[in-house]
Amino acid sequence: MKPFPYLQKANTSFTDREVTKIGDLMKEWDGETIRGVGLIGAHLSKSSISHSGACFAPGTIRKALSGYSTYSVEENIDLANWIIQDLGDISMHITDVIQSQNRIYETVQQLLKEHSSWLPVVLGGDNSITYPSIKGFKEAKGEVGVLQFDAHHDVRNLEDGGPSNGTPFRSLLETKTIKGTNLVQVGIRDFSNSKPYHDYVNKHGVTVYTMKDVRQASMKELMESSLKKLEQSVDSIYVSVDMDVIDQAQAPGCPAIGPGGMDAVDLFEAISYLGEHPMVKGLEIVEVDPTVDFRDMTSRVAAHVILNFLKGKQRGGLTFD
Amino acid sequence: MKPFPYLQKANTSFTDREVTKIGDLMKEWDGETIRGVGLIGAHLSKSSISHSGACFAPGTIRKALSGYSTYSVEENIDLANWIIQDLGDISMHITDVIQSQNRIYETVQQLLKEHSSWLPVVLGGDNSITYPSIKGFKEAKGEVGVLQFDAHHDVRNLEDGGPSNGTPFRSLLETKTIKGTNLVQVGIRDFSNSKPYHDYVNKHGVTVYTMKDVRQASMKELMESSLKKLEQSVDSIYVSVDMDVIDQAQAPGCPAIGPGGMDAVDLFEAISYLGEHPMVKGLEIVEVDPTVDFRDMTSRVAAHVILNFLKGKQRGGLTFD
Amino acid sequence: MKPFPYLQKANTSFTDREVTKIGDLMKEWDGETIRGVGLIGAHLSKSSISHSGACFAPGTIRKALSGYSTYSVEENIDLANWIIQDLGDISMHITDVIQSQNRIYETVQQLLKEHSSWLPVVLGGDNSITYPSIKGFKEAKGEVGVLQFDAHHDVRNLEDGGPSNGTPFRSLLETKTIKGTNLVQVGIRDFSNSKPYHDYVNKHGVTVYTMKDVRQASMKELMESSLKKLEQSVDSIYVSVDMDVIDQAQAPGCPAIGPGGMDAVDLFEAISYLGEHPMVKGLEIVEVDPTVDFRDMTSRVAAHVILNFLKGKQRGGLTFD
Amino acid sequence: MKPFPYLQKANTSFTDREVTKIGDLMKEWDGETIRGVGLIGAHLSKSSISHSGACFAPGTIRKALSGYSTYSVEENIDLANWIIQDLGDISMHITDVIQSQNRIYETVQQLLKEHSSWLPVVLGGDNSITYPSIKGFKEAKGEVGVLQFDAHHDVRNLEDGGPSNGTPFRSLLETKTIKGTNLVQVGIRDFSNSKPYHDYVNKHGVTVYTMKDVRQASMKELMESSLKKLEQSVDSIYVSVDMDVIDQAQAPGCPAIGPGGMDAVDLFEAISYLGEHPMVKGLEIVEVDPTVDFRDMTSRVAAHVILNFLKGKQRGGLTFD
Amino acid sequence: MKPFPYLQKANTSFTDREVTKIGDLMKEWDGETIRGVGLIGAHLSKSSISHSGACFAPGTIRKALSGYSTYSVEENIDLANWIIQDLGDISMHITDVIQSQNRIYETVQQLLKEHSSWLPVVLGGDNSITYPSIKGFKEAKGEVGVLQFDAHHDVRNLEDGGPSNGTPFRSLLETKTIKGTNLVQVGIRDFSNSKPYHDYVNKHGVTVYTMKDVRQASMKELMESSLKKLEQSVDSIYVSVDMDVIDQAQAPGCPAIGPGGMDAVDLFEAISYLGEHPMVKGLEIVEVDPTVDFRDMTSRVAAHVILNFLKGKQRGGLTFD
Amino acid sequence: MKPFPYLQKANTSFTDREVTKIGDLMKEWDGETIRGVGLIGAHLSKSSISHSGACFAPGTIRKALSGYSTYSVEENIDLANWIIQDLGDISMHITDVIQSQNRIYETVQQLLKEHSSWLPVVLGGDNSITYPSIKGFKEAKGEVGVLQFDAHHDVRNLEDGGPSNGTPFRSLLETKTIKGTNLVQVGIRDFSNSKPYHDYVNKHGVTVYTMKDVRQASMKELMESSLKKLEQSVDSIYVSVDMDVIDQAQAPGCPAIGPGGMDAVDLFEAISYLGEHPMVKGLEIVEVDPTVDFRDMTSRVAAHVILNFLKGKQRGGLTFD
Ligand SMILES: [Ca+2]
Ligand SMILES: [Ca+2]
Ligand SMILES: [Ca+2]
Ligand SMILES: [Ca+2]
Ligand SMILES: [Ca+2]
Ligand SMILES: [Ca+2]
Ligand SMILES: [Ca+2]
Ligand SMILES: [Ca+2]
Ligand SMILES: [Ca+2]
Ligand SMILES: [Ca+2]
Ligand SMILES: [Ca+2]
Ligand SMILES: [Ca+2]
Repeated sequence: MKPFPYLQKANTSFTDREVTKIGDLMKEWDGETIRGVGLIGAHLSKSSISHSGACFAPGTIRKALSGYSTYSVEENIDLANWIIQDLGDISMHITDVIQSQNRIYETVQQLLKEHSSWLPVVLGGDNSITYPSIKGFKEAKGEVGVLQFDAHHDVRNLEDGGPSNGTPFRSLLETKTIKGTNLVQVGIRDFSNSKPYHDYVNKHGVTVYTMKDVRQASMKELMESSLKKLEQSVDSIYVSVDMDVIDQAQAPGCPAIGPGGMDAVDLFEAISYLGEHPMVKGLEIVEVDPTVDFRDMTSRVAAHVILNFLKGKQRGGLTFD
Repeated sequence: MKPFPYLQKANTSFTDREVTKIGDLMKEWDGETIRGVGLIGAHLSKSSISHSGACFAPGTIRKALSGYSTYSVEENIDLANWIIQDLGDISMHITDVIQSQNRIYETVQQLLKEHSSWLPVVLGGDNSITYPSIKGFKEAKGEVGVLQFDAHHDVRNLEDGGPSNGTPFRSLLETKTIKGTNLVQVGIRDFSNSKPYHDYVNKHGVTVYTMKDVRQASMKELMESSLKKLEQSVDSIYVSVDMDVIDQAQAPGCPAIGPGGMDAVDLFEAISYLGEHPMVKGLEIVEVDPTVDFRDMTSRVAAHVILNFLKGKQRGGLTFD
Repeated sequence: MKPFPYLQKANTSFTDREVTKIGDLMKEWDGETIRGVGLIGAHLSKSSISHSGACFAPGTIRKALSGYSTYSVEENIDLANWIIQDLGDISMHITDVIQSQNRIYETVQQLLKEHSSWLPVVLGGDNSITYPSIKGFKEAKGEVGVLQFDAHHDVRNLEDGGPSNGTPFRSLLETKTIKGTNLVQVGIRDFSNSKPYHDYVNKHGVTVYTMKDVRQASMKELMESSLKKLEQSVDSIYVSVDMDVIDQAQAPGCPAIGPGGMDAVDLFEAISYLGEHPMVKGLEIVEVDPTVDFRDMTSRVAAHVILNFLKGKQRGGLTFD
Repeated sequence: MKPFPYLQKANTSFTDREVTKIGDLMKEWDGETIRGVGLIGAHLSKSSISHSGACFAPGTIRKALSGYSTYSVEENIDLANWIIQDLGDISMHITDVIQSQNRIYETVQQLLKEHSSWLPVVLGGDNSITYPSIKGFKEAKGEVGVLQFDAHHDVRNLEDGGPSNGTPFRSLLETKTIKGTNLVQVGIRDFSNSKPYHDYVNKHGVTVYTMKDVRQASMKELMESSLKKLEQSVDSIYVSVDMDVIDQAQAPGCPAIGPGGMDAVDLFEAISYLGEHPMVKGLEIVEVDPTVDFRDMTSRVAAHVILNFLKGKQRGGLTFD
Repeated sequence: MKPFPYLQKANTSFTDREVTKIGDLMKEWDGETIRGVGLIGAHLSKSSISHSGACFAPGTIRKALSGYSTYSVEENIDLANWIIQDLGDISMHITDVIQSQNRIYETVQQLLKEHSSWLPVVLGGDNSITYPSIKGFKEAKGEVGVLQFDAHHDVRNLEDGGPSNGTPFRSLLETKTIKGTNLVQVGIRDFSNSKPYHDYVNKHGVTVYTMKDVRQASMKELMESSLKKLEQSVDSIYVSVDMDVIDQAQAPGCPAIGPGGMDAVDLFEAISYLGEHPMVKGLEIVEVDPTVDFRDMTSRVAAHVILNFLKGKQRGGLTFD
Repeated sequence: MKPFPYLQKANTSFTDREVTKIGDLMKEWDGETIRGVGLIGAHLSKSSISHSGACFAPGTIRKALSGYSTYSVEENIDLANWIIQDLGDISMHITDVIQSQNRIYETVQQLLKEHSSWLPVVLGGDNSITYPSIKGFKEAKGEVGVLQFDAHHDVRNLEDGGPSNGTPFRSLLETKTIKGTNLVQVGIRDFSNSKPYHDYVNKHGVTVYTMKDVRQASMKELMESSLKKLEQSVDSIYVSVDMDVIDQAQAPGCPAIGPGGMDAVDLFEAISYLGEHPMVKGLEIVEVDPTVDFRDMTSRVAAHVILNFLKGKQRGGLTFD
């Protein structure tokens, strides 16, 4: 019997014996082999064009995620057997942004090389982490196809402010880390992108689905045709979710909010569909700024993105038995 | 003529002679016979698992409700002839939660026995009030069927924390106050319920419509088939609305918010459809926490739930002539 | 070369050489001929029935608008050749509301008479500005048809509080500034209008589309039939957008918020459709109160209303070559 | 015995049998003779130069006041025998500010003439109510001396915006309602007043105590010499408290906040000292804007101003036996 | 060398090698002997009369505390040698408030009996924890003297709502856990206490220092005479700090805020003076509600209370060598 | 006569002909000779250890400053003859923090060399701007003495995070830009600095006044003795104000808030005293973060710091005739 039966660790929350929460599956990584999804934080947002607290999102997304049940009642799928390693955060330099980005690259590539069965879920941070993250991913995984959910093309020129949250796909294309024809952009929004940058992605052969396309086709059709194309030409697929692809009413905590965006349920369906595909081996979530959010709503949406990724993976046959 | 023509009661708001507001129909109850809908507050939320200010919702919902017009322009129905008795609040004990719940039970059952034409609209408070409220309802009304709108099953075990806002339907089923086959749960949400509790309600024969079901069928179909089943087996029907069934973007003031929820308009259509049925004789609204809401949005949605209930009742033939 | 290369005007924001923003097209008016859309602020909200900070909306809408790109990626239309004159604000009297309203009338009519090619975009302010604004519009443009997007009829009697934000269409009809048969009200909401006022607009032959109508028909159908009717009977058409027509989840910063409202994308489609029509020669946006908004969301929606108006105009052939 | 022992009026708060609260002493006025302090609301703030929600202050001050105990533990004085009449609010016109101000004048003067033993506590509203209020006070009470606590002189010219919250003492002086030599301004703050207006009050013989004076002398000395002067030359004294006289850290909910202001405790001491004097027969509190306050802090300070006024009056011999 | 040099535990904050923070001294308790100060959380606030989130204060106070430096520059005292055990939180029952209070009593008394060199710092929670906490303290420590900093007497009757945050000293006196003559109340505030309760404490021989006393004497004098008296009659002294003793401008996050309160620096001086005394063996901090605070200001003040207690103890000779 | 009498520039605020505001004195710099005080913004806060929005402070301080009157009623000094040049902001790089700091250095030194009569008022930004700013100041002005108002020493080591807001005085001392004996630190706070850094400044001969010193001496005495010492050993004096020197209740918008800080009025007195001295030739204000402030309170305090600097300069004989 416990000597002090009512003494518990500080900050312990209510436990119901019949409930398995995602938090129960999350373990601080011990350095051993990683199987399945493992979380890693890239809390960099000093690279943002506008003031951003996206550096706090790894914390709020982990917290939101850990509170959800493991059970998908809609599909009768229980994730209770998973182990979700939490690898921790990549440490950021206080005053040297470029070094911080390099640390992301070096850490991701080295980890993926040593842990080939790891399915990274990278928690940004702003969208600038996408370039070092995918660069590291590619070195371990070969030719990469990217499904980018974003209101914006993110191919700004690199001269006007360096490698910021407006430039990651420019960097990826210019350095030939990925080919334009292996990039699919979903959710591109009206009056939120300039014509020169739209022309730029067209010139590189990028597949672009605007919000008008999203409203007119089913998400399943768009994903199906995207995967069909990518599976011919790449070795593995990375899913990048800039949360501002969602409408401002549903994701109020992104730096660049606006109306006319995607419905969260459509995004969830896309993500679980993608997760089911065996070539999809990485996910990142960026541009959640908890300092301007309302009741961590946007982090809760982010958590559901991860949950649907897990559901897709389990549907796709990933097991922990 | 008034001696001081410009002196008015403190806090009087602007009056337009051509507008009848619900507030104009609301009367503090005088102890006489109650006909039709009467409001009663059950402002208990110390019973909540997480910190909750749902105890303030009776006040904010009344305030929101009283400001709306009596006129449904969509259906050309005017409620201007109604009298809505406000019975007041059931007093809560400061430190004894169980006694507070008992007071709800005792007050509801005694009132219903003495005022059989009363259609109670119970304003929570958290979802723990559902057990004493329906227990009281049943003693006066016979076998009860319940239509529960909720993201959650609410059948947690009673050992881990007593009769909280997570347990009301467990209590109702365990005490056989209602039969599982007379319970319909609508809006059950992904990753928000554990498998053991889903199995539990299935075992009890509860009808469950998840959000996936809600997205795939029309609300009218779900309600029609629910009522068809219940009208065979019960004496009266009680509608329980946990406002967290609504999507977090539309009902941001619930303790357990999240994405992937019901659209408010779907709920309104369900409620007015149910209200029209003569066996539907009670309504409760729970889990609105005004202390974390934005501009009383969630209380405004709650007010529209009541308005649609009234509209249904009038459509169903309830008159005050 | 610049003597102090890093010294810039205070408050300069980041500039990307490949991006043309609406702000780049906006010029403080120099008194010369105005072509196309010109903004004018009518920052009056002391006329509101409830406390309103709508007087700040001209500032927040301008700021939101100026940050968007000129490029509609959905329709491959670039507005980069436009010049958008900013005529400034109409000065308001501190203590004399009626004089403030007269200033709006006088300024609008005089400007329109002297600048017949000006397409005014009037930024309220509350809805009381509609009467002086349309009165001025009419004197310059002849018989006027009005497409009013609003949750409310806005035909309150004038005795109970003078010419407020609840009365503009009453004033317009009573003074025969517009005919009831030339008024179309879209988005009228349940329990938000009294029967006497609904009867009043019906008596005057106003076309009314409730939210139920909006949910059941396509926006394009409603606009098509509205324009077909108006183009027979008027000389020019004015579009009045009370932002509270939008659902509270998407436009949380209006004084009179509530559930059951219009989807912003439906409004955008209506506006660009209307903008395309050559007889549509004026637009106003009212009832945005930035002091109660969340992250200027409602001003961002307002900016998209203007953007879609511009897009419609360009689709309709307006050019600046 | 109560038929429903737990049913209570909606919104009833916790009652402790051993505690008498000010709220227990407050009675809605029944039209009978008023003795001692009676509250009256003048909820006008459309007259303000800057956007102000001071119209809500009568409600928040009443609420704060009613929650305090009747007992001054510091001086062992209990107000439990008082009756505090609440006369209600003076109704305001929606669109006619000048008429609203006239209603204040007419109501105050008529009430004071008919109820000579009434000690009015006028709850603004903005500072523009001071002119009509003191004008009414004077007609009933003869020559008036005014002790004004304010960071500002409030003698702006009347041409630039009419009778606003910046002009009340200009109006009082220009109309000779009060003489400059009978006006004492306390708490005038650095860089918050223009030289011409400072010269203006000097020219009129107004006594001015700046914040520097307040820091260097004791409040008791300043009050003593002020009363000594006024009691020679006036029939009755009116105390006007613009809450922005207090430092912004302690009264954060005033429209014109700033550092370098008065300590609340100094104000309380001044007020109870003044209240004790038999010639002091009226008090007003203005410029509290609850919409920008933090947790009604400023209304709580306002309530303590009233409490100290009551304490002073009881110390001065006012009894209800 | 670290295999992944940039990978760190999630949520790691910036570390400066030259800075020792209190957080560096805090260790999760391992069950071994406790020396000196040890923190324990009593996160109960369902016992509060008004809605309170004081249950969250143990978390916010720990967080604030852990960020401060160990070094008192004012007195050149460094606490860097301390070990501060964090015993964790006492688990609370979801629905049984009385059981929760009993758990506090049982845990505190058992711990103190087994660890006589422990100096408990109890983090509330609301003020209801004081009764079980001091009851436990007394069983281990003999006759107890209490220095209570509070705006309120906290001796409400127990009939009207049970053992709430308004009753702890009533319970202590009625059960003779402490004698009235061994209780000193400091900071009792005007209009915040009823006469019957003031009479009650007087009758019990309690020493009362109102805020007027605090303003007129030095804090050192008050503490000196208090200690002089207590050291004659008790075995050990417990310091209870209800944070609402501080003025609302400096401690805005207490449930019962108001003006006219104590300056934080005076409290700090009192606490370090008390801490220096060898008979002072326990400290509690209650009534901090982080859900209504501004930027955790009140938790920061609470942390400084603890820091000054530590400083006093070190000045008093407590060492860890 | 104006063609459109009511048309004014957007965002024009109310003008009173009898009031001269500081904003009326502020002119966008035209490149001509600068006399007296000129504002320059250094909106850098990506260099901060913790997330900071201090980059927005130049905007909010300018706005607060421009709204104050030119007249000091406390000393009968009017600044109405001043011209305050606004030189604008130094542009910051999006991703290269070190380059941003260099731009501050280069701009300040070049400007000061070309405009020797300029009295710079530098608006940060975080405290990291102090190193480049003073380095530039020194190159133009010779040996520099610094009066630093700060709760912190700001001499962190440079290895752990580069040149951040924790290191400016370390950089200044290590590079011998200033001598330790020419540095006076005022307001150093308890438990907010580590012993090694306190030893470091002592070793360098820095004069340190802790908050205890500030409470025990008059501010005038501290300033007098500081100036007496510096005027012997330096060519010019620079005043650096980290706003967190002020108590958190009065300056709630600093990143590192806490209790036990300086009273704003004491700071104002220090600044006007210093401003009067002819050797004091520069002022900077840093660490105001408007994104976490309450109603721009902290920017208002900052504005008063500048106002008192101007008042001191005028008292010291600076004229614009
Ligand atoms: Ca984006
Ligand atoms: Ca992006
Ligand atoms: Ca629920
Ligand atoms: Ca529930
Ligand atoms: Ca409307
Ligand atoms: Ca309207
Ligand atoms: Ca004032
Ligand atoms: Ca005033
Ligand atoms: Ca207390
Ligand atoms: Ca207490
Ligand atoms: Ca500092
Ligand atoms: Ca500093």
